[in-house]
Amino acid sequence: MDTLVAVYRLHVPAGDAPARAEAIALEQTVELPREAVTDPVVEAGYLGRVVGLEPGPDGATLARIAYPLPSFGDDPLLLLGVLFGNTSLQPDVELVDLEIPGAAARAFGGPRRGIAGLRELAGVPDRALTAAALKPMGLAPETLAGFAAAFARAGIDVIKDDQGLVDQEACRFEDRVRAVTRALERVADETGRKALYAPYLSGSPRELPARLELLAGLDVRAVMVSPMLAGAGLLHDLAREGRLAILAHPSWAGAARVAPALLLGRIFRLLGADASIFPHAGGRFAWTAATCRALADRLREPWHGLAPALPVPAGGMTLERIPELVRFYGRDVMLLVGGSLYLAGDRLEERAREFARAVAAASAEVSR
Amino acid sequence: MDTLVAVYRLHVPAGDAPARAEAIALEQTVELPREAVTDPVVEAGYLGRVVGLEPGPDGATLARIAYPLPSFGDDPLLLLGVLFGNTSLQPDVELVDLEIPGAAARAFGGPRRGIAGLRELAGVPDRALTAAALKPMGLAPETLAGFAAAFARAGIDVIKDDQGLVDQEACRFEDRVRAVTRALERVADETGRKALYAPYLSGSPRELPARLELLAGLDVRAVMVSPMLAGAGLLHDLAREGRLAILAHPSWAGAARVAPALLLGRIFRLLGADASIFPHAGGRFAWTAATCRALADRLREPWHGLAPALPVPAGGMTLERIPELVRFYGRDVMLLVGGSLYLAGDRLEERAREFARAVAAASAEVSR
Repeated sequence: MDTLVAVYRLHVPAGDAPARAEAIALEQTVELPREAVTDPVVEAGYLGRVVGLEPGPDGATLARIAYPLPSFGDDPLLLLGVLFGNTSLQPDVELVDLEIPGAAARAFGGPRRGIAGLRELAGVPDRALTAAALKPMGLAPETLAGFAAAFARAGIDVIKDDQGLVDQEACRFEDRVRAVTRALERVADETGRKALYAPYLSGSPRELPARLELLAGLDVRAVMVSPMLAGAGLLHDLAREGRLAILAHPSWAGAARVAPALLLGRIFRLLGADASIFPHAGGRFAWTAATCRALADRLREPWHGLAPALPVPAGGMTLERIPELVRFYGRDVMLLVGGSLYLAGDRLEERAREFARAVAAASAEVSR
Repeated sequence: MDTLVAVYRLHVPAGDAPARAEAIALEQTVELPREAVTDPVVEAGYLGRVVGLEPGPDGATLARIAYPLPSFGDDPLLLLGVLFGNTSLQPDVELVDLEIPGAAARAFGGPRRGIAGLRELAGVPDRALTAAALKPMGLAPETLAGFAAAFARAGIDVIKDDQGLVDQEACRFEDRVRAVTRALERVADETGRKALYAPYLSGSPRELPARLELLAGLDVRAVMVSPMLAGAGLLHDLAREGRLAILAHPSWAGAARVAPALLLGRIFRLLGADASIFPHAGGRFAWTAATCRALADRLREPWHGLAPALPVPAGGMTLERIPELVRFYGRDVMLLVGGSLYLAGDRLEERAREFARAVAAASAEVSR
């Protein structure tokens, strides 16, 4: 029986680790005491099994648990549930990695566009890409559309909604998407180059169909989604449908003890994110360079033939750090600068142009 | 402007707390430096404000941040995003509580049935309720339906799917729900009393409509959902629709840095859970009695006129602990015993009957 292998870090005395690992294997699949599992189909095809235990560098134990593929099939929510559903409630366990057979990975499908498809949509064949965010919540659609036009004239490649923009009174989803789309079309008529707009697609199962229909009608080609808020099923639905390029946002993704490189890197890629946004080291978030390196590796490394996904470092970046960022990630990256552009006030477009130029210049100096 | 107030525990030196709290207020709403926020509508109606800072018992600082109601409106995902979206990625912050004005709480609506409605559906006016789970994954629908019939004959009030049962090859959702429904109808014909069945409703936005239609067609009256996996929007949709009683499951809610009483108590109740399942102290999960007490309080205490929701302690309970549990929670509780019943093997029904009797006996000894 082919299995997925999940790797957990157990913060328990070494002598307790074997029993603790066995308890996780049961908890995450049958939720029964071992002696109550007697059916041969359940034992062979569903029950988790401990397949490795080794001391970790920090005194913790790394436990490898194999889950038979039928336990989750091709269901993204069940995959998450089997990996960490109940165990997320236990404070002595972290989920740090997973290994999945090629056929199962390809059944989930991964990014439908990936780096190459995003480059094609944005019209950027080789250099690092640029992204800016429309914000803040509370502004009117036309004001945000004005920012979008300024970014587009400045040569920014991708313009996305802030994740605080959904459907508030000051700025309804439909009004914003229509206004921004129109503004970007007008700029494209002037400049001959159209920025890629990624509205923030959130909502409940009852709200989503109307929002998706609106996007299709306006020929919007990309969205940003928060898989850990709206549900990983939305990410996977959109990837399977294949119409929209998908930027994954990490909102609420830090709430459980899961390695960022695994959740925002491997898992979001597996479920179809074409790009994954995360805080780069040294900004407002206390992430290390090693975490960001691992996350970018999980997004871009060869993996069962799935398309590579684009890392999108963000979180308090300033223009001054661009050469450092492009050296760190190489050209297959999208740099997202948010708040610091808005400090320029009336000089927003000028500051965005400096951003775009700095990224192009930094790209010329590194190999891809 | 009315506001929601969120309470965070900041693990930073006391001297850094004012700036850290201010940074959270910005991060969770405008995601901009303060000096870039100049629009009066944004300042008054959307921007978060620090309204209190006090030393906590553990050397941390408790920060109170007020979020104007328009920043999230009546959108459950935006509520979660504003409370903890990006901040969940920052390791020095915990979300511990929220206070919400009555009108805003009533706009979300809370439980549509609550304790009284669940008691009516289950036909249990006064004593503590009992629940058992169908498991494990990998068994055929008819086998699980046999367990359901045994539980029903034994007098168990609520029978729910394990959260590991979705739509796997061995047991498709439709086959399971049909088989269990039929089995419970047959038992009701014999005994005159019908157990309440709560299938596990999971799935992506594209999968859910067909599953919901099936449930409506079979006159299923309750479901279990995992808001932190399938999305809190599903919970809120189901509550607004009002057809189904809702048991919330804590899968992936192990929000190391969100207080369980807040997430599984207050927030799930606010969004419409009629009952909330959680691990009781002393079982397989390392939760304390104080955590469970606070959680039960948040579910049941008077709160802006919202219906109270039923606490459902679970997680490795044994029959021996029933008197203690009923004394701890009182009669407004549903005791969920899972795995330990299955250890009885062929004596499953007999063991379930002992469970039901023990709960009735324990209920008679405590005041409601």
